[in-house]
Amino acid sequence: MRIARKMATRKVADLWLRKVLQVLYQRRTVTRTEIVEATGLNLASISHAMRFLLRQGTVVKMGDIQGDGGGRRRELFTLNGEAAYFVAVDIEGQRIRFALLNFKSDIRFRWEEELGWSESLDVRKLCSGMARVVRSLDPEQRSRVAAAGISYPGLLDEKGCLTAVNLGWRDFPLISELQEKARGSELNDIPFFLEAHRDSSLLAERWLGTAQGIDDGLLVFGERGLGAGILTGGTRVEGWRKMAGEIGHMTIDANSEETCRCGKRGCLEAFASTAAMVGSYAKRTGRQARMNEIYDRAREGETEAVAVIEVAARALGLALSHAVSLLNPKMIVLSGHLAAGEDLLLPLIKDEIARHTLQGLLQGLSITCSALGLDNRLKGAGAFAFRKALADSALLSRMCSPVFTRAKAGCAQ
Amino acid sequence: MRIARKMATRKVADLWLRKVLQVLYQRRTVTRTEIVEATGLNLASISHAMRFLLRQGTVVKMGDIQGDGGGRRRELFTLNGEAAYFVAVDIEGQRIRFALLNFKSDIRFRWEEELGWSESLDVRKLCSGMARVVRSLDPEQRSRVAAAGISYPGLLDEKGCLTAVNLGWRDFPLISELQEKARGSELNDIPFFLEAHRDSSLLAERWLGTAQGIDDGLLVFGERGLGAGILTGGTRVEGWRKMAGEIGHMTIDANSEETCRCGKRGCLEAFASTAAMVGSYAKRTGRQARMNEIYDRAREGETEAVAVIEVAARALGLALSHAVSLLNPKMIVLSGHLAAGEDLLLPLIKDEIARHTLQGLLQGLSITCSALGLDNRLKGAGAFAFRKALADSALLSRMCSPVFTRAKAGCAQ
Repeated sequence: MRIARKMATRKVADLWLRKVLQVLYQRRTVTRTEIVEATGLNLASISHAMRFLLRQGTVVKMGDIQGDGGGRRRELFTLNGEAAYFVAVDIEGQRIRFALLNFKSDIRFRWEEELGWSESLDVRKLCSGMARVVRSLDPEQRSRVAAAGISYPGLLDEKGCLTAVNLGWRDFPLISELQEKARGSELNDIPFFLEAHRDSSLLAERWLGTAQGIDDGLLVFGERGLGAGILTGGTRVEGWRKMAGEIGHMTIDANSEETCRCGKRGCLEAFASTAAMVGSYAKRTGRQARMNEIYDRAREGETEAVAVIEVAARALGLALSHAVSLLNPKMIVLSGHLAAGEDLLLPLIKDEIARHTLQGLLQGLSITCSALGLDNRLKGAGAFAFRKALADSALLSRMCSPVFTRAKAGCAQ
Repeated sequence: MRIARKMATRKVADLWLRKVLQVLYQRRTVTRTEIVEATGLNLASISHAMRFLLRQGTVVKMGDIQGDGGGRRRELFTLNGEAAYFVAVDIEGQRIRFALLNFKSDIRFRWEEELGWSESLDVRKLCSGMARVVRSLDPEQRSRVAAAGISYPGLLDEKGCLTAVNLGWRDFPLISELQEKARGSELNDIPFFLEAHRDSSLLAERWLGTAQGIDDGLLVFGERGLGAGILTGGTRVEGWRKMAGEIGHMTIDANSEETCRCGKRGCLEAFASTAAMVGSYAKRTGRQARMNEIYDRAREGETEAVAVIEVAARALGLALSHAVSLLNPKMIVLSGHLAAGEDLLLPLIKDEIARHTLQGLLQGLSITCSALGLDNRLKGAGAFAFRKALADSALLSRMCSPVFTRAKAGCAQ
């Protein structure tokens, strides 16, 4: 009750809190002046919001910093990692990955559930995994889980049905199933938000990864399929049916005999997805190998492995050159299995892009691999849940509710 | 003096005027209710603005309309075509096209200046053409020219220098030259605004042409070179160096022997620009022909002409399929020489796009030709000048200054 009243009567505008928390979330450690610069709010509003957040325990002071040349000492702030938690889920082809992220986007707990290659999505597995993540917290901390973010493959339509051709899922009623299965469980009070893989990867790279401050970029994620998240002028490109970024189904070689899962010939995926690369290696050698084994063999100089990688990289380079010609991005970030083979793929991809692109479009273009590795989408799903929670007044209150240590909680009663 | 005072003391907010004029400009004829719906302003603000604009003579009443089912009679309004004028310039490869557009985007006067194929851009020709356009008005009307819009090929850098590789122009100081040559002439009081070809074509299609109401689209303009204007989520894609839309230099066939002007091999332009098509026809037949003659011969069934068109259309279809995969547009509009060959090109292009694109991306996609024809960029340049004038308070006043017939002007003195 005490807490409820305190929240209800707080005088700090939600807008200020949103802007301040956003800056703290993305930059991790900041001074008041940096918050002023990043938010465009005036110092009085910032100070007011910061006083509130410090009193609540949402934000903590890390210490003071002073420049080399002396000058005024400035206080350095950071989010209290334990003030809010997010459940993050990454629905992959063969497995579902779960994580508990704290307020600083650190992974506090992780858990994976294997799916068979051709198994259909089982929402009970999804919900039990999420519940297990929540249970990793002490019971009194569980009310601090602000929201869950779920990163999904394929396309979610207006009715909340998921279609992911590569996974064999068609019109799967994901949202209604999730709502039904969550009812009455530990997940009852935790709103969930769904974001497509390409968008959650992109969000992770922009907020927490390599592409911070980039307004025109392309994030290519590769695994069983290939997709791209596209950013122009600081905005994600969605397309009118929200299907933008289907880089995997661009025709790379119209005369190719490689048939793609989609039925077309010569798609990028038929050369550069893990499935294609593993398949091509098996065809060349008669041996099965996992993606990482192929990379390792190529590093040892095995001819067949090198050839598989060469074909994939050249196809990727050509497809990316088309994207560069159309969109004039400043940065291309590769993630998933493409990042795992960075040392092998990147030089060839760069070479191929340069071969097929106007000189002016290459100037200042940086082509790099994700630094977030396999956690890219989990972090993106968490960041998406944070963003959604930030926009919701009740969830904002949850994130800003007072953080007591047990001793303090005793005092307050 | 009288007029100046009247303008200075007007009570109508510029914001209302801007919104109302914008709607009238794009829709041509509207009722008050339609303006309310389109602007989101309340009826009182609209009525206030409309009273002012009617009194000034900027807007005129066309008549009343009544629905078939009876109901209240509604007044229908339109812009007074003679309340403001715009000079529009389209810098093509071989010629500069000039026009005077009235407030309703009707072309009132046009004039062309030929340039040789390899001639460098002569700013005096530009300025004398624009001055000639202004002089087509009666002296007392000349003060109603609100602004000039100039549509340019290639890339204009931050220093105002134009580079258009296809035209052989490098670092041409267009803006400073224009300012210098305009000084002291009829053009002294007329601000000019420059917009890239791909953007002015796109603006024309969105405001006055085929793509009205389209938020995700692609406009491909073809002539000596090939370029695209790209729209996603209602916003133009510019790219970080403002070079987005270089569809002409996408590599269509990496193994091709066709070398592009840019030095690369197998660019789209090497198959589908007018230069490439004319060149290919000459190679096949040993005869020179203009683009329209090639189209005519193909219509008559001449094998070589048909082959030239087939190659161009297939190359265009493949390039456009890449754009569809990446951007999921709702509409593709072809203009320039591509529109002139609509009957021949469009079926082949559609067929090729369908062959190379995921089914889901094809749903609801419309592929069509520009209805504005060769005036596309002139209208776009005019619309751009209007948009810029709208944003400038002094030019807004100029557009809303009282329109007197000569008799009335006499009375007012």
